[in-house]
Amino acid sequence: MEILIVGSGNMARGIGLRLVRGGHRVRIADREPDKAADLAAELGDSASGEILDGTAGAEVIVFATPYEASKQLAEMWASELAGKTVIDICNPVDFTTFDGLVTPEGKSAAEEIAAAAPGTRVVKAFNTTFASRLANSTPLDVFIAGDDPDAKKTVTGLCLDADLRPIDVGGLKHARVLEAFQLLHMKVQDQIQGGWATELTFKPA
Amino acid sequence: MEILIVGSGNMARGIGLRLVRGGHRVRIADREPDKAADLAAELGDSASGEILDGTAGAEVIVFATPYEASKQLAEMWASELAGKTVIDICNPVDFTTFDGLVTPEGKSAAEEIAAAAPGTRVVKAFNTTFASRLANSTPLDVFIAGDDPDAKKTVTGLCLDADLRPIDVGGLKHARVLEAFQLLHMKVQDQIQGGWATELTFKPA
Repeated sequence: MEILIVGSGNMARGIGLRLVRGGHRVRIADREPDKAADLAAELGDSASGEILDGTAGAEVIVFATPYEASKQLAEMWASELAGKTVIDICNPVDFTTFDGLVTPEGKSAAEEIAAAAPGTRVVKAFNTTFASRLANSTPLDVFIAGDDPDAKKTVTGLCLDADLRPIDVGGLKHARVLEAFQLLHMKVQDQIQGGWATELTFKPA
Repeated sequence: MEILIVGSGNMARGIGLRLVRGGHRVRIADREPDKAADLAAELGDSASGEILDGTAGAEVIVFATPYEASKQLAEMWASELAGKTVIDICNPVDFTTFDGLVTPEGKSAAEEIAAAAPGTRVVKAFNTTFASRLANSTPLDVFIAGDDPDAKKTVTGLCLDADLRPIDVGGLKHARVLEAFQLLHMKVQDQIQGGWATELTFKPA
């Protein structure tokens, strides 16, 4: 599959590494093409870098960008995204308080992004997996929420290819809970071992 | 410490076992005194059973009851609970849909219980730990939310005594997220190994 990852930060790197290992072709797009090229070089021959310039050719698009930027991408690309699968990974944390979210009461970032690009098959995934854990090869739980069954099937398949454990938590509304719980995961990092490399999981007994 | 557990179901059993092993004195209270006595007998010499009849003598009270019953207990005992530490463990799941909660939008069961008994030091804990996992002796993450620092300190201490890993996620408002995430934990049991014995955890790397 050809996957366009927007952004070239740590999460783009972690997801890109997993997808390339899973046998997929990864395009990294960034407003700064040098950054995209650098990350693509690190990901290897199945990856390429490009300047941010549309989604043509991509079967799946990953917004590996902060919430505000992801929303802007959805608005900017609204017409070309219709019918496509977009993976939203963001955590709309209020970094001024680190004790709440910046999304409107009762709404998730994923729903806001979906509303900005009607007809897009938005799937929430990877918001609870820290980049450092994606970058190595241990299995991780990936919680998936979305309203489009085919898009969720696609994301589930990508996870399985990448040695991840997909867990379908239901409709896109449940992204609210994934985002809210990840805030708790982030804000207690000083209390738990292995800070910023911990794993939110439904660990088997 | 003398702890009154209201209820004699699986969660009362799991928490009771942990607390007794942790060196505490446990009283089991139930509307049906035989059930309370049976569970107390199973818990051993540090436990006793009684009919549900107030909280006198107890330093900490655990509502090991469903949401509606817990709210009724709070209303019924409002005056005697003021200043006391109450642990609310409930999950206000809408069992007709198994896809939502019965609490008012934006409110947690814990906050509703606290509102029903003003002045009570309500702490949310143990709502994400399945009874079967509490009943054995492996460590488990216990997520704790509450507005009263002393009450949280007490609950944190009880957890440490019981070989559990307390994680303070902040104020009582965060109980909303603990409850909502536990619904997801419950509803995906058919997708994950080790059903109803899995562990919601921030597993270290």
